[in-house]
Amino acid sequence: MARKSETSETRADKKGTWLTYRPDIKVLDCTIRDGGLINACHFEDGFVRAIYETCAAAGVDYMEIGYKGSKKVYAPKEYGPWKYCDEDDLRRIVGEGPATVKLSVMADAERTDYHEDILPKQQSVLDMIRVATYIHQIPTALDMIKCAHDKGYETTLNLMGVSVVQEHELSEALDILARSEVNVIYIVDSFGSLYSEEIQVLARKFIQVAGRAGKQVGIHTHNNQQLAYANTIEGLILGVSYLDCTMGGLGRGAGNCPTELLLGFLKNPKFHIRPVLQCLQDHILPMRQKLKWGFDIPYMLTGQLNMHPRLAIEAVEEGRQDFVGFYDDITAEE
Amino acid sequence: MARKSETSETRADKKGTWLTYRPDIKVLDCTIRDGGLINACHFEDGFVRAIYETCAAAGVDYMEIGYKGSKKVYAPKEYGPWKYCDEDDLRRIVGEGPATVKLSVMADAERTDYHEDILPKQQSVLDMIRVATYIHQIPTALDMIKCAHDKGYETTLNLMGVSVVQEHELSEALDILARSEVNVIYIVDSFGSLYSEEIQVLARKFIQVAGRAGKQVGIHTHNNQQLAYANTIEGLILGVSYLDCTMGGLGRGAGNCPTELLLGFLKNPKFHIRPVLQCLQDHILPMRQKLKWGFDIPYMLTGQLNMHPRLAIEAVEEGRQDFVGFYDDITAEE
Repeated sequence: MARKSETSETRADKKGTWLTYRPDIKVLDCTIRDGGLINACHFEDGFVRAIYETCAAAGVDYMEIGYKGSKKVYAPKEYGPWKYCDEDDLRRIVGEGPATVKLSVMADAERTDYHEDILPKQQSVLDMIRVATYIHQIPTALDMIKCAHDKGYETTLNLMGVSVVQEHELSEALDILARSEVNVIYIVDSFGSLYSEEIQVLARKFIQVAGRAGKQVGIHTHNNQQLAYANTIEGLILGVSYLDCTMGGLGRGAGNCPTELLLGFLKNPKFHIRPVLQCLQDHILPMRQKLKWGFDIPYMLTGQLNMHPRLAIEAVEEGRQDFVGFYDDITAEE
Repeated sequence: MARKSETSETRADKKGTWLTYRPDIKVLDCTIRDGGLINACHFEDGFVRAIYETCAAAGVDYMEIGYKGSKKVYAPKEYGPWKYCDEDDLRRIVGEGPATVKLSVMADAERTDYHEDILPKQQSVLDMIRVATYIHQIPTALDMIKCAHDKGYETTLNLMGVSVVQEHELSEALDILARSEVNVIYIVDSFGSLYSEEIQVLARKFIQVAGRAGKQVGIHTHNNQQLAYANTIEGLILGVSYLDCTMGGLGRGAGNCPTELLLGFLKNPKFHIRPVLQCLQDHILPMRQKLKWGFDIPYMLTGQLNMHPRLAIEAVEEGRQDFVGFYDDITAEE
């Protein structure tokens, strides 16, 4: 590369520049998990295996292969195997023996039969349980974290909808989480509404509390305002360690931070972009014939308004292109 | 809006937060000019008029309506009217009397017969001449600036390819520009390769020199790495005043910072997003049937490698989807 610009300490507390790399950085590809929200987790084995093999070849640290959804909440006749991630299904992808990439699943607070469905670590190929929670579900989430931790897993707590959490409640939540068994606390921009200045405030706050407790911080972004990648590297620069991404940005609505952009930024020589490019041309592009995702004006509008994207997702599914009418609808609703 | 996050001074020298607005901010929509690079400036009058009326209704400060290209360099049988912006063509769009939005044209160094083709301001509906120059063309650009200034125009100097300019040469260039007649000096990320940290360094450097000379700074970004909007607001936060954008991001290759995203961020009540949404649904979406633009993997790769996007533009035009082969080609070339 022929870059010529200077490097300098422009953020007083930043943890590196684009020329350095930090060994604490972990990349988590959640293509199958987040993408599963579009197709009720009906990915074919060949696609899941391709993502798995790409993650291994690209040096991705964790692959999130799906959910641990409750079969009482989510009827198995409606969802594919990656809604539950039963051990047999996982083994069909990974084969026998240890996995070549660490595997995680997401367990939603109040929607997982965690006592039964999460096996002791010795009986599972999974490495990490990620508990997704809104702030009012934190007591449940903490019990899930304790359960997963006691069974031998790495754990993360993904605090969703952080853009609508009151500051003093966030402070209280973080203090509670700091005293829990959780290893990583995630900033989750569920609505794709956060700007870089807000990411800075949140990253500093999370890192301060988590750091004191010997925990790390992660970030999961959405691309409603074309800021998923920008906000991920903003967090990274300030010291966030766990970075979520998906290949081709595949994910519900506006999608996620693209793995290929993130690996292009990261300088640790263990990361390789070439296998991701191969996967994009062989598997993600063909998937675009079947699934629709990525930036679109309705997603932008809910992001700008700091609203859940559900109305935008409906609008895009209906092929609605009267953006003004959609804007008037969602602003009238406020 | 239901935003709840705190505001705080997270960048020591930043000029505002997302809750404030700065009266010095000027939005320049260059849909017709930058888009003209895709279709040899063959936009129909109805489309140009729609953009013009949208800019007026949206509170956009300047509309860039095309180039002042030399008819000796660009044969008129090959290009549409917006390659030259003759006064009669401008009047067809604007009508008689003063324009409702300030109008600018771009004049490329060494590709404009500026002595003849730029009329005295009193004879033209144009308000601003923007001189686009690579660093080695600055002597020519300065003569163009002087000429346009003496004829009565506002002027900007757009320093292209800044991501491959040596620092000491940039310092020297800025010192020269600070002594010129130019009103605004633009950072131009021609390759879409700059990260936020680099934008910070450049914005501070440009603002320091320009500010001392009573000039302002502008920014023009490209979306190769999905950072066009993020980098524009990064510059804005640090004090950049002139912000380029295009509706729907319409522009060559990966396109530009979308006007609709930028207006969603700006808080000055003079800006209105609704007319832009109307224009998107009525004019920009239909244009997508005819013209191809926006983020794609080949553009990402040339951006990551800090290369001119021309090879990526060729690849996308050819419909090339072997990303690995393209990556190997362009990295072998280095």
